[in-house]
Amino acid sequence: MKERRYDVDLIDTLLDLAQRPHETLPSESMRLARLSFFDWMVCGLAAADEPVTQKLLRFVEEEGGRATASTFGGGRAPARAAALANGTISHALDYDDTHFAHIGHLSVGIYPAAFAAGEEVGGRMKEVHAAFLLGAESAIRVGLALGPGHYERGFHQTATAGAFGATVAAGRLYGLNRDQMRAALGLCSTRASGLKNQFGTMGKPLNAGIAAANGIECARLAALGLTSADDGISGAQGFIATHSDAATGAPDLPNPFLFDDIRYKLHACCHGTHAMIEALLKVQADRSIDAAEVQSVTITVHPKWLNVCDIKQPRTGLEVKFSYVWLAAMVLSGISTSSPMRYTDALANDISLKGLAQKVRVATDPSVADTAAKVALAYADGTEFAQEHDLMAQFPIDEIEGRVIHKAQTMLGERAGTIWGQLTRAGGSDARDIAKSLVFIDGVAESL
Amino acid sequence: MKERRYDVDLIDTLLDLAQRPHETLPSESMRLARLSFFDWMVCGLAAADEPVTQKLLRFVEEEGGRATASTFGGGRAPARAAALANGTISHALDYDDTHFAHIGHLSVGIYPAAFAAGEEVGGRMKEVHAAFLLGAESAIRVGLALGPGHYERGFHQTATAGAFGATVAAGRLYGLNRDQMRAALGLCSTRASGLKNQFGTMGKPLNAGIAAANGIECARLAALGLTSADDGISGAQGFIATHSDAATGAPDLPNPFLFDDIRYKLHACCHGTHAMIEALLKVQADRSIDAAEVQSVTITVHPKWLNVCDIKQPRTGLEVKFSYVWLAAMVLSGISTSSPMRYTDALANDISLKGLAQKVRVATDPSVADTAAKVALAYADGTEFAQEHDLMAQFPIDEIEGRVIHKAQTMLGERAGTIWGQLTRAGGSDARDIAKSLVFIDGVAESL
Repeated sequence: MKERRYDVDLIDTLLDLAQRPHETLPSESMRLARLSFFDWMVCGLAAADEPVTQKLLRFVEEEGGRATASTFGGGRAPARAAALANGTISHALDYDDTHFAHIGHLSVGIYPAAFAAGEEVGGRMKEVHAAFLLGAESAIRVGLALGPGHYERGFHQTATAGAFGATVAAGRLYGLNRDQMRAALGLCSTRASGLKNQFGTMGKPLNAGIAAANGIECARLAALGLTSADDGISGAQGFIATHSDAATGAPDLPNPFLFDDIRYKLHACCHGTHAMIEALLKVQADRSIDAAEVQSVTITVHPKWLNVCDIKQPRTGLEVKFSYVWLAAMVLSGISTSSPMRYTDALANDISLKGLAQKVRVATDPSVADTAAKVALAYADGTEFAQEHDLMAQFPIDEIEGRVIHKAQTMLGERAGTIWGQLTRAGGSDARDIAKSLVFIDGVAESL
Repeated sequence: MKERRYDVDLIDTLLDLAQRPHETLPSESMRLARLSFFDWMVCGLAAADEPVTQKLLRFVEEEGGRATASTFGGGRAPARAAALANGTISHALDYDDTHFAHIGHLSVGIYPAAFAAGEEVGGRMKEVHAAFLLGAESAIRVGLALGPGHYERGFHQTATAGAFGATVAAGRLYGLNRDQMRAALGLCSTRASGLKNQFGTMGKPLNAGIAAANGIECARLAALGLTSADDGISGAQGFIATHSDAATGAPDLPNPFLFDDIRYKLHACCHGTHAMIEALLKVQADRSIDAAEVQSVTITVHPKWLNVCDIKQPRTGLEVKFSYVWLAAMVLSGISTSSPMRYTDALANDISLKGLAQKVRVATDPSVADTAAKVALAYADGTEFAQEHDLMAQFPIDEIEGRVIHKAQTMLGERAGTIWGQLTRAGGSDARDIAKSLVFIDGVAESL
C-alpha cells in the first residue's frame, strides 16, 4: 500500500517542487547549488582539449540556429543544442559532482538545461540555481523510485532520471504552468534514455548532454501546447514501469532536500581510491609527513575495489588513476591528486614514487563500507598513525567550498578565483553575464 | 545456442545491410519502398491542419539553423530538426504504413531521416528509397529481436526499433564507413526511446519524429568521430538486454526482405475494422450492392475487437471510426472509408446509415484470426453472399499501388497524381526536387 501511495504521489511531488517559491528554498541547499554550478563550470572549462569537446562543438556549429544560449568555448546556439554540447563537455573529464542515492551525476545533466534556459530568458543566476536545485531534487526522487535495479539492468541514471530533472529546471525557467509541466514530464517519459554500455567511450559524457537537451526540448514542446501522458513517471506503462524491474518506492521526504547529500569529486582518479586519499590527508593534517621516514603503509578497503583500482605497477597516467599504491605514494610525497593534468605517463615511471609505492600494502575487509578506507602508517622512529575516512561523512559547508575552490585552482589557476568572485558578488549576477565566461583561454591547461 | 549465435550476428547483419550495393536490392522491394515514400508524403501533406503539425513547425522555426532539409509545409531546417517535425507530422493522422512482425510503423520513423539526409547530400530519390529499405529492414530485425515482450512492457517499437532503422538510413546517405556505422548504432542504443503511454496524445506522433531525429543525430555524431559501444544492440547491457524481458531471437533470414510484408492503411478508421471492410468490398465486387435490397448482414470477428471497435451508436465522427455497424453501412451505401475528412459528426447522425446499421449483427469466433473477418449478407430476393478477408493476404503489387494511389486521391485530389508522376517519371528524380513538393496547398483538404 505504501508503495502504491508513493507511486500516485511522485508526479505531484515533482509538480509541487517545480512551482516552489524561491524564498522557501533552504539557504544551505542554495549555497550547495551555487557550488555545484561553479564545479560544473570548472569541469567544462577544463575539458577544452578533450576530443569529445571539439566534436560536440562542431556538431552544434554545423546545425547553427537562433543563438540564444552559450556553449563552452564561447560559441552560441539554440538552448537545446547548447545544453547537448555543454552537458557532454562538462562530463568529459568525469570529474563533476555525484549523488549516491540518485545513483548518478546531477550537475552535468541538469545545469546545462537550467543555464541555457536561464540565459535565453535573461534570468538571474539565483533563479538558475533554484531551478537546478528543484530539478536535481526531482531527479533524485525519480532515481530513488527507479531504484538500484534500474542501474543494474544497464540504465544510466545520470541520463534517465537526469532528464526529468532537466525538464523541471528548464520548464520552471520557461514559466510553464502546472498543466504544461505535467505535459513536459509526460513527454520526457517517452524521450529520456541512456545506457551504461557507453562507459569507456565518448557516449558516456554524451549521456549527460542527452539528458540536458531532452529537458529543453520537452519543456519547449510543452510550452507550445503539446499534450502527453498525464503521469509519464509512475502511470501505466510509464517510465518506471517500463524501465525498472523492481521500483522500490521511496520514503516520503518533502524536507530536508535530499540534494544536500551531493558530493564533489576532489581527486581526479577512480572514485574507489578517494576515501584512502582523504584518510591519508587526515594523517598529513595531524603530522606533516616526511616520506623518507615512512616505513610501511597499510590500506584497508572493501574487497569489491580490488579488481577496480589496485593496479600495482601502473604503466600510464590513466593507470595511475586506478592504483592505490601509486596514489598513496603521491599523497605521501605531497603531490596533488586534484588536477587531471597531473596524471601523466611520466608519473607512472617516477622512481621515487615507485620506491614509496613498494612500502604500501592493500588489505581488504568486507566490514569496511565501500565508501570508506582505513590507513595505518608506521614510521622509522617506531611511531604509528592510523586514520579512516568515509565519503558519506559530511564536511561543514565552508570547508566544502574551500576544497572545491582549491580543486578549481589546480585546474584553472587564477581564473577559478575570478569565476568564484563573479558567482558570489554582492547583489548576485545575471545568467547572460556569467555565460560570457564560458570562453576557453588557450594555454591555461598547459601552464599548470 | 541458436539465440546466442543470433545475438552475436545481429549487429553484423545490420552493418551488412547498411553497405549493401544498390544494384543487389530486389526490384519489388524497391517498388514497395517507393510506394511507402508516396504514402508517407501523402499522410504528411494531409496533416496540414492537425494541431500538432503547427506546433512542431513552430518549434523547429524557433530554433532555426542551417537550412539543409525541407519540412512539410515548405519550411527549411537542419536535417535533424526537419526529421523531428516530418516524422511527427506524417504520423499525426495515424494513417501510414504498418509492419506486423516489426510491430510498428516504418515510414514515419525512417523516411524523415532518409529524406532529410538525402536532400542534405543532394542524392537521388532511388538512393533515398534504398536507404529507407535497408533502414526499414534493420528496424524489422531489431523489432523481431526485441520481441512482443518489448511492446507489451510499454515500449513503442515505431520509436525504439525505428531509431535504429533511421540511423542506418541516414548513416548510409551520409557515407559512413563500417566502423562509423557501428558507432552510430552504439550511440543509437543510448539515444533511442519511446513509450506507448503517449497513445491518445500528441506524444504518439512525436515518437515517430523522435526516431527520425535520433537517426540523424547519431549518424552525424558518428561521422564526426564520436566513439560508442561496439555492439549497442545485442551486446552486454545493450538495447535488447535493457529494454526487453524475453528477447526472442529471430530466424536467420537474409532474404527475402522481410520488409515486403509491409501493409498500407487504406481505410481511415480503426485497424480492427479493416478486414470487415475488405470482405464487404469483395462482396460488392462480386455483385453491385443495392443497399435497399439488403435484409441482414452478419460480421464475424475475433472477440478481442469487441471492446475496441464495436460502438453500436456512434455520436461523433471519431466514434464512427470504431463502429463496425456504421462502417458496414457506409460500405453498403458506397461511401468511401478512405478519406479522414469523411468522418464527420454529421455522418454519425445520418438517418439512412442508421437504418442500415440496424441490419448489421456482429458475432465473434475465437478461431477467426485477429487480422481477419467473415461477412454474410442476405438479400430480399432470398439470395445470400458470404466473403472473408485476412489482412495478412498479399495483393499483387500493381493492385497495391493502385489502391494506395486511390487513397491518396481521396486525401489530396489531383495533387496525388502529380506527386506520383514525379516519383515514377523516367530517369528518376532528385531528393531536392521532390522536397519542393512538401508545401501545403491551402484549401485542398476543405475541397474534398
